[in-house]
Amino acid sequence: MGLAALCPGTFDPVTNGHLDIIGRAARCFDRLVVAVLENPDKEPVFSVDDRIGMLREATSGFSGVEVDSFSGLLVAYAAQRDIRVVVKGLRAVTDFDYELQMAQMNTKMAGVETFLMPTSPQWSFLSSTLIKQVVRFGGDVSGMVPPFVARRLEEKLAPRKV
Amino acid sequence: MGLAALCPGTFDPVTNGHLDIIGRAARCFDRLVVAVLENPDKEPVFSVDDRIGMLREATSGFSGVEVDSFSGLLVAYAAQRDIRVVVKGLRAVTDFDYELQMAQMNTKMAGVETFLMPTSPQWSFLSSTLIKQVVRFGGDVSGMVPPFVARRLEEKLAPRKV
Amino acid sequence: MGLAALCPGTFDPVTNGHLDIIGRAARCFDRLVVAVLENPDKEPVFSVDDRIGMLREATSGFSGVEVDSFSGLLVAYAAQRDIRVVVKGLRAVTDFDYELQMAQMNTKMAGVETFLMPTSPQWSFLSSTLIKQVVRFGGDVSGMVPPFVARRLEEKLAPRKV
Amino acid sequence: MGLAALCPGTFDPVTNGHLDIIGRAARCFDRLVVAVLENPDKEPVFSVDDRIGMLREATSGFSGVEVDSFSGLLVAYAAQRDIRVVVKGLRAVTDFDYELQMAQMNTKMAGVETFLMPTSPQWSFLSSTLIKQVVRFGGDVSGMVPPFVARRLEEKLAPRKV
Amino acid sequence: MGLAALCPGTFDPVTNGHLDIIGRAARCFDRLVVAVLENPDKEPVFSVDDRIGMLREATSGFSGVEVDSFSGLLVAYAAQRDIRVVVKGLRAVTDFDYELQMAQMNTKMAGVETFLMPTSPQWSFLSSTLIKQVVRFGGDVSGMVPPFVARRLEEKLAPRKV
Amino acid sequence: MGLAALCPGTFDPVTNGHLDIIGRAARCFDRLVVAVLENPDKEPVFSVDDRIGMLREATSGFSGVEVDSFSGLLVAYAAQRDIRVVVKGLRAVTDFDYELQMAQMNTKMAGVETFLMPTSPQWSFLSSTLIKQVVRFGGDVSGMVPPFVARRLEEKLAPRKV
Repeated sequence: MGLAALCPGTFDPVTNGHLDIIGRAARCFDRLVVAVLENPDKEPVFSVDDRIGMLREATSGFSGVEVDSFSGLLVAYAAQRDIRVVVKGLRAVTDFDYELQMAQMNTKMAGVETFLMPTSPQWSFLSSTLIKQVVRFGGDVSGMVPPFVARRLEEKLAPRKV
Repeated sequence: MGLAALCPGTFDPVTNGHLDIIGRAARCFDRLVVAVLENPDKEPVFSVDDRIGMLREATSGFSGVEVDSFSGLLVAYAAQRDIRVVVKGLRAVTDFDYELQMAQMNTKMAGVETFLMPTSPQWSFLSSTLIKQVVRFGGDVSGMVPPFVARRLEEKLAPRKV
Repeated sequence: MGLAALCPGTFDPVTNGHLDIIGRAARCFDRLVVAVLENPDKEPVFSVDDRIGMLREATSGFSGVEVDSFSGLLVAYAAQRDIRVVVKGLRAVTDFDYELQMAQMNTKMAGVETFLMPTSPQWSFLSSTLIKQVVRFGGDVSGMVPPFVARRLEEKLAPRKV
Repeated sequence: MGLAALCPGTFDPVTNGHLDIIGRAARCFDRLVVAVLENPDKEPVFSVDDRIGMLREATSGFSGVEVDSFSGLLVAYAAQRDIRVVVKGLRAVTDFDYELQMAQMNTKMAGVETFLMPTSPQWSFLSSTLIKQVVRFGGDVSGMVPPFVARRLEEKLAPRKV
Repeated sequence: MGLAALCPGTFDPVTNGHLDIIGRAARCFDRLVVAVLENPDKEPVFSVDDRIGMLREATSGFSGVEVDSFSGLLVAYAAQRDIRVVVKGLRAVTDFDYELQMAQMNTKMAGVETFLMPTSPQWSFLSSTLIKQVVRFGGDVSGMVPPFVARRLEEKLAPRKV
Repeated sequence: MGLAALCPGTFDPVTNGHLDIIGRAARCFDRLVVAVLENPDKEPVFSVDDRIGMLREATSGFSGVEVDSFSGLLVAYAAQRDIRVVVKGLRAVTDFDYELQMAQMNTKMAGVETFLMPTSPQWSFLSSTLIKQVVRFGGDVSGMVPPFVARRLEEKLAPRKV
């Protein structure tokens, strides 16, 4: 059946940095489940269905990638999917502190292992939060997200032109 | 009269990581005042009285430990208690940046010194915030907080079973 | 016409740490535009006009310094002012991660360069946020902000004495 | 044939921290090649053969683990073994900076991917260098390396008792 | 006469990461003096003259760039050249700690200011040390240094082919 | 008898940064033993006796401070002196990583606790290594070490004037 891994995230929306990690991870595992977190405490710009749809479109050319969503604990979802490896992108030291804490918690709670993959240098400055902020102020994010995601962001967030 | 130190925090609720620092610090000083911060800007899960109660129960076996609460500036409380040493646990680099800033501010404002104690490795991934998040999603935090704290957390935060 | 640089920030309010960077940067460039960010998402203590006024008073002895405000993207404001160099103070590692991300985004979007200047050691623990917190609790911040700023902070934030 | 990964290192000598990573990684992949680096520029305490021997003994209970050695570039050895995934343990921020640099270099040179696994908290303070230093000064490292490695270290490095 | 800056380094040899910083800094200042450090304590692969020659060739298309060398204290050389601004590339947190220390020392000793410029993401993993190590082991560094530097490195360091 | 602490280091030579930590720590404990490490692997500029002598002179005005030396493991020396608390200055993130590792090792080996004290901001850029480097190149370190230490450094290290 081969080795499967889980790539969880909020993906609000998917960026070229996410796609870099997903594409590189997909080539390392037999199956990669990209899992959109439904977090009732956050107010995302895009609904879970929208985020899943954009991820499916953006990863349609990758083989072995499945897009799904989950709520609650990552380790519970991992157990339900019978997967014990999580893959996360790593950009900076503040990422590192947080991901280390989460990884050690998930290993302690459920024996789930986390593999931190360094994000490719050219995307190391990207985050969904920063991209949404740029679009809100009328900035151009083409080349940082897939073109259809840039259009969706502009429809949702760009200031009205007069 | 001996040397006294102050161990301030939110303790919402106390974790095994806090107890590791409190227990090790208590053995280094003649008297250790564990001081619960009443912060009007935050909405804790447990009231100050509850947090004090849990700390007293959890530290009942330690000698030389007193549990108290304070509001306002730490250095004002330290002056009122006639204590000039603060002890804080240190886990990660983001802790370090924040604690360094606070420590230098407190030395500058009032000559209060801060001793940063490395948290024992086995608790380095724990935080009250992470523990509350795990319980809210139905996860198991036994072994990370004292058993009676785990029960209190579940009563307050665990999702209802059907 | 000489080399101009931009020093953006929230400045809510200006601190001695900001003035250290502004003064040292002003001596390196022919012209330094200190630019107050109008951020509709944040609730500052002081209005943009108040923040501009305090910056003008505090920098009145510096030559080549202009105080202005902007909203929206920094790179758009830089283009409008025909300036391509940004100067930011750097204190700690968490600053570094954030400023690195912003700098790389701004270079990518608009070819704007960011020069990170290490804050002088004696101010490395200061931030507007920490200073406001100290004043709110009745603490003394003289020596950390200009005297007239300390008075303004106390009028706005200090707890009432009975 | 399944997914294989490479776990390179100097292993002079293997510690419980290394064994933690090797054991956890071995459970995630079908095959794990632990590869001892022959570095002509360093003067190890143990020969490559000794280091391989100790690793084989220490990992004899793990399934799917092979111990080998290599000299030269890791990516060349990976190509020769037809493996494209490297697994490294990650303890601290200085590790992170170095491993990030190496990982990005190896991806750029040869498309080799690096998975950084957080070392289990209880071993996060261990390094071969620190352990050798402790033994040289007559300290006790039992519980930090396998017992037979502790004996080998003492034979080689411990100060003579009179 | 305009604003001048100093870009010091060992440059053993110049990499595309150095050229990124030099090119971007040259566009920000009227004059940029790239200064090769003669350090009697280190054993560089290339002589100072070679390093100067390679830098001159690599920067021949940049305007306003001068290549020079110095020994002794950077601040003494800066005073002699009548320049008070230093520009350094910044890649990672370990860079940051070291550069912060040097910058604060140089400001304290001589009022020399240091501007830290984030290295462009695509070169953030490069260092002269890592590049020499790759060439020594027979690896390919084209695309990481200018082509003529790659040839010089291979003549000096590449293992003999049989 | 009161609480005693150990402040170990190489002190080659003592700087104002060391004296800041020693002075502030001395006010927190009943007795502070400043312990010079005799490390046979390093080649210090000053002998152990010289380093002890300079420390005694520099700390002669502090009460409760004793200067001693030790070789071998810090925890063995601590046991011999019947002291279980170590105090170290903390400046930057690279310090933090190293001191955390050493502190956790010393707690694990011998139950010795380490208190990390943030160095006062104005000395945060100082190190004995950097100071020796400056003197070797003819720079001025007055204001960074006590005057008599500056003289000793110049006698030993300053380049000959012609």
